[in-house]
Amino acid sequence: MSPTSWLPIPHGSHFSIANIPFGIISTARSQTPRPAVAIGDFVLDLCVFALSDGFRGLESTALDISIFNEKTLNRFASLGRGVHREVREYLQSVFRQNTPIPHVLKDDINLRQQALLPRETVKNHTPLQIGTYTDFFAGKHHAENCGIIFRGPSNALQPNYLHLPVGYHSRASSVVVSGTPVRRPKGQILLQRSGSPVLAASQRLDIELELGAFLCNSNPLGEPIDLDKADDYIFGYVLLNDWSARDIQAWEAAPLGPFNAKSFCSTISPWVVLPEALQPFRCAPIPNETSLLPYLRERRTDSVFGIELDVSIISKEGRRTVLSQTTSSNLIYSFPQMIAHHTIGGCPLEVGDLLGSGTISGTKPGTLGSLLEMTQGGKRMVQLADGEERCFLDDGDSVVIEGRCGSGDQDGIVGFGECSGTIIPSIL
Amino acid sequence: MSPTSWLPIPHGSHFSIANIPFGIISTARSQTPRPAVAIGDFVLDLCVFALSDGFRGLESTALDISIFNEKTLNRFASLGRGVHREVREYLQSVFRQNTPIPHVLKDDINLRQQALLPRETVKNHTPLQIGTYTDFFAGKHHAENCGIIFRGPSNALQPNYLHLPVGYHSRASSVVVSGTPVRRPKGQILLQRSGSPVLAASQRLDIELELGAFLCNSNPLGEPIDLDKADDYIFGYVLLNDWSARDIQAWEAAPLGPFNAKSFCSTISPWVVLPEALQPFRCAPIPNETSLLPYLRERRTDSVFGIELDVSIISKEGRRTVLSQTTSSNLIYSFPQMIAHHTIGGCPLEVGDLLGSGTISGTKPGTLGSLLEMTQGGKRMVQLADGEERCFLDDGDSVVIEGRCGSGDQDGIVGFGECSGTIIPSIL
Repeated sequence: MSPTSWLPIPHGSHFSIANIPFGIISTARSQTPRPAVAIGDFVLDLCVFALSDGFRGLESTALDISIFNEKTLNRFASLGRGVHREVREYLQSVFRQNTPIPHVLKDDINLRQQALLPRETVKNHTPLQIGTYTDFFAGKHHAENCGIIFRGPSNALQPNYLHLPVGYHSRASSVVVSGTPVRRPKGQILLQRSGSPVLAASQRLDIELELGAFLCNSNPLGEPIDLDKADDYIFGYVLLNDWSARDIQAWEAAPLGPFNAKSFCSTISPWVVLPEALQPFRCAPIPNETSLLPYLRERRTDSVFGIELDVSIISKEGRRTVLSQTTSSNLIYSFPQMIAHHTIGGCPLEVGDLLGSGTISGTKPGTLGSLLEMTQGGKRMVQLADGEERCFLDDGDSVVIEGRCGSGDQDGIVGFGECSGTIIPSIL
Repeated sequence: MSPTSWLPIPHGSHFSIANIPFGIISTARSQTPRPAVAIGDFVLDLCVFALSDGFRGLESTALDISIFNEKTLNRFASLGRGVHREVREYLQSVFRQNTPIPHVLKDDINLRQQALLPRETVKNHTPLQIGTYTDFFAGKHHAENCGIIFRGPSNALQPNYLHLPVGYHSRASSVVVSGTPVRRPKGQILLQRSGSPVLAASQRLDIELELGAFLCNSNPLGEPIDLDKADDYIFGYVLLNDWSARDIQAWEAAPLGPFNAKSFCSTISPWVVLPEALQPFRCAPIPNETSLLPYLRERRTDSVFGIELDVSIISKEGRRTVLSQTTSSNLIYSFPQMIAHHTIGGCPLEVGDLLGSGTISGTKPGTLGSLLEMTQGGKRMVQLADGEERCFLDDGDSVVIEGRCGSGDQDGIVGFGECSGTIIPSIL
């Protein structure tokens, strides 16, 4: 039974008291970005709350409250999982119906007015300064679906796929927070197999539905992270749309992998959901019959999460079509496995690094995480609610990814809010 | 005729008065990293020099001398090419034989003792905090040599190669400064084509001889950088050894490109040579008969530099063998072309980003930038001076890359010093 709050939390809210995700906000009146948590239709401004001695009821000695007077969550993240847990639990106790510390916020009308802001009035910023963004390819069904499109069913998966979490370095500087417009990229495109490339706006602009993990710990150069300890490196999770220009990708990617096709923009949801909030929703990944090398062998069977994901498209006219509904358990590797593999050669990870899961797809129509898969490589149109159809994204289209765990019980939902972006025309 | 200095500069020094490269140093007595320039066998500690009002003769109003009280060169770099030029020219005038400002350093014995430190007594640090490290593949002969090894001479270059500077995101957090030991990575290796991979220390550890460029300017998301303006984004150049584990690479790289095979370590030379110092050594790149798209069409014909490069291996016993001698003009794309391409889709570059040229090779034995090429894919041993031979690197081997421009005239040389690393055994 989840605890209920004295703050009215609307039925179905992603930000129940069981969640308490962290983000960075600013307001029209106070434009310096600062940490906050989301709760119901509000956010708690942690900078104001901390400076007003809101953390006086927290017995932790490790907490230097100046960490909430920062423009990113990196310093808070770097304090480690134990501190995140304490702070989250303390904030849950502050909001609980029968809070033992009503004087801290519930009964302090002044502080409530200053620190508890309607969520619709705040602007979200990228929650952490991202050192590096590494994107994996752990959605096995996606890898298979794409492999079938490009190489046929007999060679769908590359030989390494079932032995290691394939990944590549992507571009951190173009990661933006939900709501940021997405400029259609231009780039080199080969229109005819035998011809020369042209410079043009991408005509095959796609979605990639992913889960992202932010790191809160670092390893020294040359020292791998053990799989058993890898979970301690994860600060929390966000939704990720790894926008992709398929036509640019097809031409540029040999032999070193995707580059400009991905680095124009990647959108993340604004609120970082801590692992503790997702703990009740752990489940098994896609089974892997391969005998993995010991450094990748998970002891736990519930190494991923059952986050219900959906992707919608909203056309310029405002009609919404749900394109896909799937679950984040459609991964064959867990984030701890990705971390263990990423560092097995000694690569140092850093606080603020972002890892992407790779596109998450099911196996059937209606469960796919990219238009490439939905349209079978651009061969079959997708029907929208208003009678329109799409192969890839049009200018003016908005794409909204949502993710949530838990029942309709108003206190039990742990959600991510929206990860959205609207396509704006290329400059040519 | 280059100016000569009142400071004795040994014949053949890489750090003539025509150079004045910037780096970050610390000393046993003062362990806080701080900016410096290299001159002859000395470095000028710019933090001490600036705090002692050494810049009083500089008429620039733009210079806030607190930029030299920083642990990286990022702030200095961000001031832009005009300021770098002024500061370099001012420091040249300070060191000139007939300096018009002898009171600033030449005649100030106290300041000389405090600020002018023997280079052998200082420790070098990574000169800039690196946002992202993007590695290109612009050494056409290298691309061809490798293509012949892997795909045969008829398909040596991929279809895109002559149309765009192929590149990929590499790993910034494992870039280290010359002298840092290089831990042999372990990773998944496929020993037999039909078998399963093993976890083992790489047995095919290789060198990649490259030139690196640090950026000093940024572009907003969505706004490409024009080729004509791209040179203004380059702070300066370093040598780069992009160590590569060929056996890990062969297994992991499909379909998203190299990952752990590269991200265990990349070594750079410590002193950033400014574009102004290299200006006299501009020359033409490898000709490209392809009609490039307009955004990649260089107006200048001297878009690369004729830096003489060599790679040596020093075995455990201390015997040095020069493996390769080549020139940095062996590139088919210039750094401005790489910048124009990197941003054509709107990817934002940032101050402190590092771009690698890709491996620089000539066409003949003795001019190749990787052991992969020297050994024709590991099939032919390379003979060392002491009668030993190598296919790839052994533990205890040191690799030293050097680069220099200009004649033996003692004041004319513009060099990079050493980019070196010694292989230490894997932890298994």
